[in-house]
Amino acid sequence: MTQVYNFSAGPAMMPKAVLEQAQKELLNWQNQGTSVMEVSHRGKLFMELITQADKDFRELFHIPDNYKILFLQGGARGQFAAIPMNLIGEKGKALYLNSGHWSGTAAKEARNFCEIDELSIIETDANGVISVNRTDFSNIAEQYDYVHYCTNETISGVEIKEIPNVGNTVLVADMSSNILSSKIDISKFGVIYAGAQKNLGPAGITIVIVREDLIGKARKDTPSIWNYEVQANADSMINTPPTFAWYLCSLVFKHLLTTGGLEAVEQRNLSKAQRLYDYLNQSTFYRNYIAEQNRSVMNVTFTTDNDELNAKFVAEATACGLQALKGHKVLGGMRASIYNAMPIEGVDALIAFMDKFAKENS
Amino acid sequence: MTQVYNFSAGPAMMPKAVLEQAQKELLNWQNQGTSVMEVSHRGKLFMELITQADKDFRELFHIPDNYKILFLQGGARGQFAAIPMNLIGEKGKALYLNSGHWSGTAAKEARNFCEIDELSIIETDANGVISVNRTDFSNIAEQYDYVHYCTNETISGVEIKEIPNVGNTVLVADMSSNILSSKIDISKFGVIYAGAQKNLGPAGITIVIVREDLIGKARKDTPSIWNYEVQANADSMINTPPTFAWYLCSLVFKHLLTTGGLEAVEQRNLSKAQRLYDYLNQSTFYRNYIAEQNRSVMNVTFTTDNDELNAKFVAEATACGLQALKGHKVLGGMRASIYNAMPIEGVDALIAFMDKFAKENS
Repeated sequence: MTQVYNFSAGPAMMPKAVLEQAQKELLNWQNQGTSVMEVSHRGKLFMELITQADKDFRELFHIPDNYKILFLQGGARGQFAAIPMNLIGEKGKALYLNSGHWSGTAAKEARNFCEIDELSIIETDANGVISVNRTDFSNIAEQYDYVHYCTNETISGVEIKEIPNVGNTVLVADMSSNILSSKIDISKFGVIYAGAQKNLGPAGITIVIVREDLIGKARKDTPSIWNYEVQANADSMINTPPTFAWYLCSLVFKHLLTTGGLEAVEQRNLSKAQRLYDYLNQSTFYRNYIAEQNRSVMNVTFTTDNDELNAKFVAEATACGLQALKGHKVLGGMRASIYNAMPIEGVDALIAFMDKFAKENS
Repeated sequence: MTQVYNFSAGPAMMPKAVLEQAQKELLNWQNQGTSVMEVSHRGKLFMELITQADKDFRELFHIPDNYKILFLQGGARGQFAAIPMNLIGEKGKALYLNSGHWSGTAAKEARNFCEIDELSIIETDANGVISVNRTDFSNIAEQYDYVHYCTNETISGVEIKEIPNVGNTVLVADMSSNILSSKIDISKFGVIYAGAQKNLGPAGITIVIVREDLIGKARKDTPSIWNYEVQANADSMINTPPTFAWYLCSLVFKHLLTTGGLEAVEQRNLSKAQRLYDYLNQSTFYRNYIAEQNRSVMNVTFTTDNDELNAKFVAEATACGLQALKGHKVLGGMRASIYNAMPIEGVDALIAFMDKFAKENS
């Protein structure tokens, strides 16, 4: 079989070593004669697994002791509802920074639960180049219970690399598509949440990192599976958790720790993105429409500005084993998602194909 | 290794053939060179998978055409909140039949969303034997938007085998622990829901079977991932679904269809339960405290009426490869969960062990 590289935006590539271990022990985990997905979540061995996963993720992502890590169900979109239910307090309103599709969708769902002010923080210049135009909100933040933003817009490939200044107001971040891709100062955040299916594990598990003083404020009708206090007190097991997905996350954490930790992850990611953007910068055939300082390290969007040629690109790339390069339907063009698990060889193979395709079609 | 039989109440045993297939194709699904958990849920192959899964489950469980099948996240406990949010209408209240722990927990969560009347339908006689004392609610049902019950209480092992009569009122059932264990008349129900982790697949996916005329009534602040209308219109993909869990369910459906369908499943289940209850009936050493007509076909509870002896039983059984027989902490004693995937050989091995243990400890 041709070497395959999967550029899917999510569910995305998993580390090969993790899948191989999962395969090996799928029918016999920990010498129990059963699969990890068949054992009680409250059994000794599974409890050890989640304790170690908490420890490993905390070490890997440098999470301070005054934060709880919850492993929940419902995806980031579930948290779009859960965030206001857990965090809205006396002020009764929140500020949502809109930098694209996902931050806008989060704001829309939150409106069901409280008053929301939404502020666009992107602009498009005369050449169609998109940039984030504001990261300081310290003069307006204190009227809100929290300020929400999305660190990386998966669809457009816009990343906000500077943490917004919100003074003493609680900062909430949807990090679904760039969590664990680089070192960040967790202490600047009140809540960080992410669907697992890009950098953490498979689809079907959602990680919430919440500062302890923010736990215990949920409104009464918060579904118990999303009530941070209930779940923090129950080791994220108020209901049966997605055990197999949790197990896979635990393997990913261990894999990253034993291959250099977050610092090595970040260096690999920067190298991969740099190579791809360097190629795009010198190309007259392809364009990326994101300003240099907001170019996503995870999702690299590009286009030939010709829909037919884009479709031809995607079809031929797929035939060469370069999968899932079609851009999101709302934007068109191409998108290469190069999350943690994408090896640099995949990026090199993509660049080689892009170059060949450009020469053949110029 | 000793032959292991896993009596876990959930997450529970999976069919061995399903796990073997999953293992075989874990790194290379459909000859794509990637895992099924790494591909886009909106890609052609995964869309084919879910279309086939819908078809197979519909055929297997005899689901009429006027019902939608949703594959969601959040477990049955998520549905404890979602049910009232989706179904409460003009009457503004619902009736919850309490037959034990789970039906009571469902009522408690529902109280956050509407007025709930809760009616105990179990009684305990002078010998401690528990039975369901009422299944006809036709004289009171019409004052409610719906009537909710739990078909099988996993903890105590109480099964309600007769479908409650609620007249024309919508009947809602939590079937988490006995869905797909026997043939039922789906048309008697408005909504059936179940966490997958007993008879359908792994933990982390929840199936909701909803009659079409009940879709579209959700209150405005229903989280979009649980809004039946939103999810029915989006093929259960308003957010990234738990793709690997869905895939495993699809394998379970196919496996059951190719091994005789629901009728064969039901016969096997009745045989397994009959053997175990027959043994308990003649035993003077063990007791089951559920009235004959309400004995669960899935969860068989028994006790020696002596805590120390129960603990010894569980420890020695575990050492013999008979796993997870400890009863739920709220009840003590023992519990053998013998879901669809438990072979009759497992039940025979359990009975042989029980008999040996009884002789050694009488």
